[in-house]
Amino acid sequence: MRQWHDECGVFGAWQDPEAGRMTYLGLYAQQHRGQESAGIVSLHQGQHLSHKGSGLVGDVFSESHLDHLKGSAAIGHVRYSTTGLNEQTNIQPLMAQLFNGPVALAHNGNIVNSHVLRAQLKEQGAIFQGTNDTECLLHLLAKHPSNDIIRCLRETVPQLKGAFSLLLLTHDRLVAIRDPLGFRPLVLGTRPLEGGGVSYVVASETCAFDLIGAKFVREIEPGEIFWLDKDGEHSEGIAFDSSLTESSSSSVSEPIPASVSPPAVAESVTASSAASSLRVSGSPRTKTAKCVFEHVYFARPDSNVFGLSVYESRKAMGRQLAIESGVEADMVIPVPDSGVPAAIGYSAESGLPFELGIIRNHYIGRTFIQPSQSIRSFGVKIKLNPQSHVIRGKRVVVIDDSLVRGTTSQKIIRLIRQAGAKEVHFRIASPPTTGPCFYGVDTPKKSQLIAAQQSTEDIRRFIDADSLCYLSISGMLQAIGASQDEYCAACFDGRYPTELFGLDQEDSN
Amino acid sequence: MRQWHDECGVFGAWQDPEAGRMTYLGLYAQQHRGQESAGIVSLHQGQHLSHKGSGLVGDVFSESHLDHLKGSAAIGHVRYSTTGLNEQTNIQPLMAQLFNGPVALAHNGNIVNSHVLRAQLKEQGAIFQGTNDTECLLHLLAKHPSNDIIRCLRETVPQLKGAFSLLLLTHDRLVAIRDPLGFRPLVLGTRPLEGGGVSYVVASETCAFDLIGAKFVREIEPGEIFWLDKDGEHSEGIAFDSSLTESSSSSVSEPIPASVSPPAVAESVTASSAASSLRVSGSPRTKTAKCVFEHVYFARPDSNVFGLSVYESRKAMGRQLAIESGVEADMVIPVPDSGVPAAIGYSAESGLPFELGIIRNHYIGRTFIQPSQSIRSFGVKIKLNPQSHVIRGKRVVVIDDSLVRGTTSQKIIRLIRQAGAKEVHFRIASPPTTGPCFYGVDTPKKSQLIAAQQSTEDIRRFIDADSLCYLSISGMLQAIGASQDEYCAACFDGRYPTELFGLDQEDSN
Amino acid sequence: MRQWHDECGVFGAWQDPEAGRMTYLGLYAQQHRGQESAGIVSLHQGQHLSHKGSGLVGDVFSESHLDHLKGSAAIGHVRYSTTGLNEQTNIQPLMAQLFNGPVALAHNGNIVNSHVLRAQLKEQGAIFQGTNDTECLLHLLAKHPSNDIIRCLRETVPQLKGAFSLLLLTHDRLVAIRDPLGFRPLVLGTRPLEGGGVSYVVASETCAFDLIGAKFVREIEPGEIFWLDKDGEHSEGIAFDSSLTESSSSSVSEPIPASVSPPAVAESVTASSAASSLRVSGSPRTKTAKCVFEHVYFARPDSNVFGLSVYESRKAMGRQLAIESGVEADMVIPVPDSGVPAAIGYSAESGLPFELGIIRNHYIGRTFIQPSQSIRSFGVKIKLNPQSHVIRGKRVVVIDDSLVRGTTSQKIIRLIRQAGAKEVHFRIASPPTTGPCFYGVDTPKKSQLIAAQQSTEDIRRFIDADSLCYLSISGMLQAIGASQDEYCAACFDGRYPTELFGLDQEDSN
Amino acid sequence: MRQWHDECGVFGAWQDPEAGRMTYLGLYAQQHRGQESAGIVSLHQGQHLSHKGSGLVGDVFSESHLDHLKGSAAIGHVRYSTTGLNEQTNIQPLMAQLFNGPVALAHNGNIVNSHVLRAQLKEQGAIFQGTNDTECLLHLLAKHPSNDIIRCLRETVPQLKGAFSLLLLTHDRLVAIRDPLGFRPLVLGTRPLEGGGVSYVVASETCAFDLIGAKFVREIEPGEIFWLDKDGEHSEGIAFDSSLTESSSSSVSEPIPASVSPPAVAESVTASSAASSLRVSGSPRTKTAKCVFEHVYFARPDSNVFGLSVYESRKAMGRQLAIESGVEADMVIPVPDSGVPAAIGYSAESGLPFELGIIRNHYIGRTFIQPSQSIRSFGVKIKLNPQSHVIRGKRVVVIDDSLVRGTTSQKIIRLIRQAGAKEVHFRIASPPTTGPCFYGVDTPKKSQLIAAQQSTEDIRRFIDADSLCYLSISGMLQAIGASQDEYCAACFDGRYPTELFGLDQEDSN
Repeated sequence: MRQWHDECGVFGAWQDPEAGRMTYLGLYAQQHRGQESAGIVSLHQGQHLSHKGSGLVGDVFSESHLDHLKGSAAIGHVRYSTTGLNEQTNIQPLMAQLFNGPVALAHNGNIVNSHVLRAQLKEQGAIFQGTNDTECLLHLLAKHPSNDIIRCLRETVPQLKGAFSLLLLTHDRLVAIRDPLGFRPLVLGTRPLEGGGVSYVVASETCAFDLIGAKFVREIEPGEIFWLDKDGEHSEGIAFDSSLTESSSSSVSEPIPASVSPPAVAESVTASSAASSLRVSGSPRTKTAKCVFEHVYFARPDSNVFGLSVYESRKAMGRQLAIESGVEADMVIPVPDSGVPAAIGYSAESGLPFELGIIRNHYIGRTFIQPSQSIRSFGVKIKLNPQSHVIRGKRVVVIDDSLVRGTTSQKIIRLIRQAGAKEVHFRIASPPTTGPCFYGVDTPKKSQLIAAQQSTEDIRRFIDADSLCYLSISGMLQAIGASQDEYCAACFDGRYPTELFGLDQEDSN
Repeated sequence: MRQWHDECGVFGAWQDPEAGRMTYLGLYAQQHRGQESAGIVSLHQGQHLSHKGSGLVGDVFSESHLDHLKGSAAIGHVRYSTTGLNEQTNIQPLMAQLFNGPVALAHNGNIVNSHVLRAQLKEQGAIFQGTNDTECLLHLLAKHPSNDIIRCLRETVPQLKGAFSLLLLTHDRLVAIRDPLGFRPLVLGTRPLEGGGVSYVVASETCAFDLIGAKFVREIEPGEIFWLDKDGEHSEGIAFDSSLTESSSSSVSEPIPASVSPPAVAESVTASSAASSLRVSGSPRTKTAKCVFEHVYFARPDSNVFGLSVYESRKAMGRQLAIESGVEADMVIPVPDSGVPAAIGYSAESGLPFELGIIRNHYIGRTFIQPSQSIRSFGVKIKLNPQSHVIRGKRVVVIDDSLVRGTTSQKIIRLIRQAGAKEVHFRIASPPTTGPCFYGVDTPKKSQLIAAQQSTEDIRRFIDADSLCYLSISGMLQAIGASQDEYCAACFDGRYPTELFGLDQEDSN
Repeated sequence: MRQWHDECGVFGAWQDPEAGRMTYLGLYAQQHRGQESAGIVSLHQGQHLSHKGSGLVGDVFSESHLDHLKGSAAIGHVRYSTTGLNEQTNIQPLMAQLFNGPVALAHNGNIVNSHVLRAQLKEQGAIFQGTNDTECLLHLLAKHPSNDIIRCLRETVPQLKGAFSLLLLTHDRLVAIRDPLGFRPLVLGTRPLEGGGVSYVVASETCAFDLIGAKFVREIEPGEIFWLDKDGEHSEGIAFDSSLTESSSSSVSEPIPASVSPPAVAESVTASSAASSLRVSGSPRTKTAKCVFEHVYFARPDSNVFGLSVYESRKAMGRQLAIESGVEADMVIPVPDSGVPAAIGYSAESGLPFELGIIRNHYIGRTFIQPSQSIRSFGVKIKLNPQSHVIRGKRVVVIDDSLVRGTTSQKIIRLIRQAGAKEVHFRIASPPTTGPCFYGVDTPKKSQLIAAQQSTEDIRRFIDADSLCYLSISGMLQAIGASQDEYCAACFDGRYPTELFGLDQEDSN
Repeated sequence: MRQWHDECGVFGAWQDPEAGRMTYLGLYAQQHRGQESAGIVSLHQGQHLSHKGSGLVGDVFSESHLDHLKGSAAIGHVRYSTTGLNEQTNIQPLMAQLFNGPVALAHNGNIVNSHVLRAQLKEQGAIFQGTNDTECLLHLLAKHPSNDIIRCLRETVPQLKGAFSLLLLTHDRLVAIRDPLGFRPLVLGTRPLEGGGVSYVVASETCAFDLIGAKFVREIEPGEIFWLDKDGEHSEGIAFDSSLTESSSSSVSEPIPASVSPPAVAESVTASSAASSLRVSGSPRTKTAKCVFEHVYFARPDSNVFGLSVYESRKAMGRQLAIESGVEADMVIPVPDSGVPAAIGYSAESGLPFELGIIRNHYIGRTFIQPSQSIRSFGVKIKLNPQSHVIRGKRVVVIDDSLVRGTTSQKIIRLIRQAGAKEVHFRIASPPTTGPCFYGVDTPKKSQLIAAQQSTEDIRRFIDADSLCYLSISGMLQAIGASQDEYCAACFDGRYPTELFGLDQEDSN
């Protein structure tokens, strides 16, 4: 059940006669990645036009806003933001006047050394408008003596540590950058135009391409800087320091050889084969840190993330869960909607029938007024309704994607028992969550992660399940055919792939 | 896939310290029955307080509106309305000053002779505020010489022909009435109060009870008039004319014997056993006309309607469909969300794996702005995204609840084929829809019902399926264990259980 | 200073290609007559289109609303309403389906026997939607056996007692009616059209004509029924009972001779000469009861009401006030804005200089948030700011249009004294208000009218003025050149020109 | 008539338990100085809380916004802004994190060398969020090495050229600064508190003090930096370069002696005597450049600006106008509301009667929808309605405060003639406007100022007046008892008191 706040989603369009509207649709499709604010900046006659606001994409933008967002290039952003003062200034894309022209910036991820950079920049007289980590890059660029934005990026981006899938729009370029460890996804596609030819589109997830009829071409590679201008597409590797997990705020200043050959973008490349076509020269990377939680929970099930179907990944985790922790029971029921794919996998592997034992009310999600008097477990009941005629007297295996604080699981199980279930076997299609994320996911503090504080047996007793099992870490990786060198699973195993610059001392918030 | 406009939902609360808020929640849970407008009328110190508006329940009511709706009794209504002029006046509950006091009225169903009654009443000087069928009853009551509302209802309700599940709130009573054939559901429950004791609640569907922690007691019976006042609960049968399918606008005037004993409402009665506990004296009914479409599509799957679990009914129809029209294939995929229960049943019966081959975007449903240029099948794509990694190269059985015009099915199949399916076998978990509904469901005209115009083979060719099969009428009834004397299936078999007063000549709109 | 709630304003347009927009503008110009709600009904292809809402005209109507109000005829209404339940249903124009067609009704005034008529009608089964007096007429029309609306009006309007300037729009006519005593103004004009020809316009005040470039033609006469249809204009006198001040709810049923010749509407008629051109045959009236308060306070100063300039009337009252109650002083200052014309007259007559000693803040009028701590006289100060550099050490004559409760005057005088005035002589340009109005003005109850309870000397002491004088009743009438047989001055002299049907016993609220 | 866009207004409160609400009220009273946006920043426990928005003060702030603006200090701003992209970021007070704490800044005026400063700052890597001139100061402060804000201001403010009345709020101080020539007003007052003691308030105009019951103490002097902190009030003169009209962007770096003694703030000081009590040591200034247009048009008539009553100033200008340009006529009528005080003066001097010959519709000012067809002079008519019964056949002197483009005057005269005036003598209570303002007033470009292009006789013919006269420059100054060394009248005489940094070449926009 959704209890993680999503991070962010980005979208960009280039040489598209409907760049603004395509970006709107691209954000709409990625709404699950950020529901607190949305913004679009378009490029029209060398100037930036923008509209941003708090709320869902469909609420922030009206027809007239989209009419206003003229031009054939645009970038957009959806965001989950921590509430706070002056949050208006934090809505992305961020905008500034630089290099004698406008620059807009959309970021998915988290820069772990931003507080260090902010302190340095403020000492040098920089004024920060917002409180987000992304603004650092704008100031680094502003201070750079060159007027060539690609050179600036090449020399300043290595100062950023952590997770960043970035889109920049200038007066003549759309730039996409992915951090060297590739924490967050970033994909490239093309959209066939009515009059022939294609436009370029970039997104966090492939589901954005599906909506607008675009084709997936390939991932933006970890450590790649990719840009589009009037001459077409270009790509380089960024020279990050070799020891990626070590602390260093000094930038690598030696220029990158410009001989990098841009990847061939072939329209006919299919989704399954395109992902591996690019190896950026100069960055023979042996280790990446793709976020495994994109597969566990974040990404939309119909997206293809890091080259894998999210739906199939979840089903495979459910299958593996059944192998690891099978139990005698009458049926498998998912906690909707996030537990559904894993439950299908569990059912297929175990042979137990799959049942919608809990119905979700899909009208929830906007303002909702509570009753004055307490109705027990009302907060869960407004979203989920267990069906007594299905589960009465039955032994049920309940599948959820993850278990964070345990309080929601406790309430769900109480409702299931009230509906008459004889036994409740709770199965989590991911390992115990024992650490916060510092790479762009809004997790609770360590002290609020129940698995960081209690044993599985204690948790089982707390949620009042007849049995409780998690998926093993190795089982999770095996399900998606991955090695630990490829994925970041720090929230499960505590192995953070970068220095944390003291963030772990204060605990994430 | 949802292509039927829902009809209406009603809710009432009596002797409940939070009557207004409970009604709000009851409407919220029944939002699927009407999304165009919502209204609540509460009873406070002998006066009616109200708030009504266009839109979803969560949008129409704010905290301050609910604070305004004081009192320990209330009724509410959600509605799908045909768009039109002055629709504000059609939002229910309707309100009027009658019998030296206020009367509010909420109606689910359709009165088929309302045009006849309206003409008569207008001739007598009645002023109609709105264009809906419900207002007739208010005028019939207003003209009645008695000041006793139960007597008035007893003598005027028989003039109404068609489908009506009604709630009335006066200055001292909450009245629930169901037409003699029982087209639409209407259920009674009790809600345990914090300080002890229970309040009474009435709703269209039991899912409203689940949300507020109320217990289902029994159905309001076809032909029953049930009311709550300071002395508790009361019930009578209404003397409708004996030949229910014949035309007659003359009211039955002979008084009903008052010796009807009210049904015992026992809190301990369970959902499964309570439904049949009441037989209203004076109405030994052998025939009813419960709407089978409530089971096929309308009601929420977690509701219990006409004594049956909707989810189980749909699963059973899916099973029966597999028995009748099995086909060799690789997987079963539902058209989400309405096809899911039937697909689970089909999968269980056929042994074919159940897969979420089509993902639904749940952020849809509010304002959405179209792209300027055409994106092929955009209207379907914004809601549904077939997953090529799941269905590529596969023979898929696609399950939908019903097929109305065929155009949406055509688009879905096109998307599935584009996603790479090798064969598409379309299966409809209900019979061919050949006639419009005149009993409260907003169906297309007969001329727009593809099954009324074309053969199944023609339809198969139109939607471009490799095979197309419907559930048989007998199979549908068998799945829910019902006889034709119990259910109205007129939209499938053309056997309308009442006179239609010429409505069938103009076709439904 | 504005402390009377205004009553209502009406506007109608016929054969005007922009009927909806002209009505919008006509209401806008008459906004001072009602600021709580506004509505317009237009006639398009035999059907009524409408939009109504709470608030100011500029807020209720958007561009798209006006686009919706198609057609070449329309009527509109602005209204001050007593707050209450279900007020939505009271927003005028009221609408109903009658005579096989739509009827819309806009009313300025008050029907004093409406509670009597309502009781009778309810007994006969009529359902009232709202709580206003106007709805009675719709029910009287609905019950009338004829299908000819003019005949219906002819025979039902005489049942109405009190004040009514009415506009009705049917599917083929615009009807204007004024009660036999002519309490409220109602004027006819023509608007030159771009392509040549004129359209007809009807309004409460001539200021509405000025805005849209229309010419005043004449008043609708007391007791006249005037209508426009495809054949042009028509007029009749209505046969009211001879003894107008007597109670009678029986309608006069003998038909009116149809030989009434319609008045010639000549475009060249000028404002000053047109008013007296009509004498409706059959109604040789010797007595009218025009509301003198329209001149004292209600009407806009730039309107021409009952044949007189409102601004000149007020100036003349100010002059008369100086004659009656001159005092030695240094300057005359108005309470803005309503006291300005009388102060100009007073200054001219007395020779004392006119000074803006109190400045009004014109941004007031919408939502305004109070300080938490008390600021003395804040409520007045937010609107009015006395200027100490103007009045310090001076003897000032302060002119206000009327004095109702005395509390506002008390606060104004306190502020003037704080600003340093040496003497404050308060002069009221109307007589003491001693009785409530039952003819369409929302006055306080008698118990709250200070002049009904206390002597002038007591009031002077209460408001802390050095002297206080009112205009005499005879002086007021003399100033506007009128006799008591022509005007209703009941709020000053207690001589109510109709029976009150018990309203005076309960006191107005 | 209002045709100048206003500039800005500021307000601040210190040690006031209702600082946020007082600032709201202070802005409300100064709404005429800026109607496009409003903002308030309050200081609560060392942090800044803020709310800003587009629109009128009453619309931007709700009760809950004011509840949010906790703390005992606040500053606010109302603004007229040129429309443009990203205007949200230009709404003041501007906010930034500086000196390890928050700084908020509200500015009335215009910094004429801001484009020079911006260019320098951007070269050094500063990122500008908005397009306004005020942001420069934040960046100058940010770059300053000191952590002492007063020292920073002392050393950076001299770099600013032009007009600036500034309020700054830090985490522990409220600072008020006025440019050395004192273009814009800035006044200090005290507000008596309920429990005893006073709070400090600062405003652009004294009318803000009147509303909240505060007393005017004195003007912030030209060249003064005044601040409030926990130790009370402090004041210094700022060392601007000696030759104030010469160009110099180098800052004066020698420190100001800190021995400046703060002015005694005596509560008993009256408005008339307080203004001259302060002479800041170190700044024996012989020349100021107070904006004469504050008296001609900008300030509210009930304000005291630069030590003079605005109302009395305008009346005196009207008197002087009658002396200079008397004409035989029947009456004097103002163009409301701005021409009223001058018309009163003209009437008093000339002996001609003062008449409200034109009535203003005060409901204008919000959204208003135009008719589709053209109504002649509609734009003026919606605001102003000449009264034919007053002016028909009369020779009228029409008084307006200024004449900018001439087009509005032309329309007003046309309406007056249509209303029947025999002669129209147009009198302007200020000299011909021949140059744009670069000091904070949004004037048209020189090419659009009719008096910069045409002779008075040509203008007379254009507006179709029988005669046209302006007030002379010397007459204007004489009326307010001022010398040219004291006031800036550049818009009339072209003598700009500072270098313009090329602004005059591009013309103002």
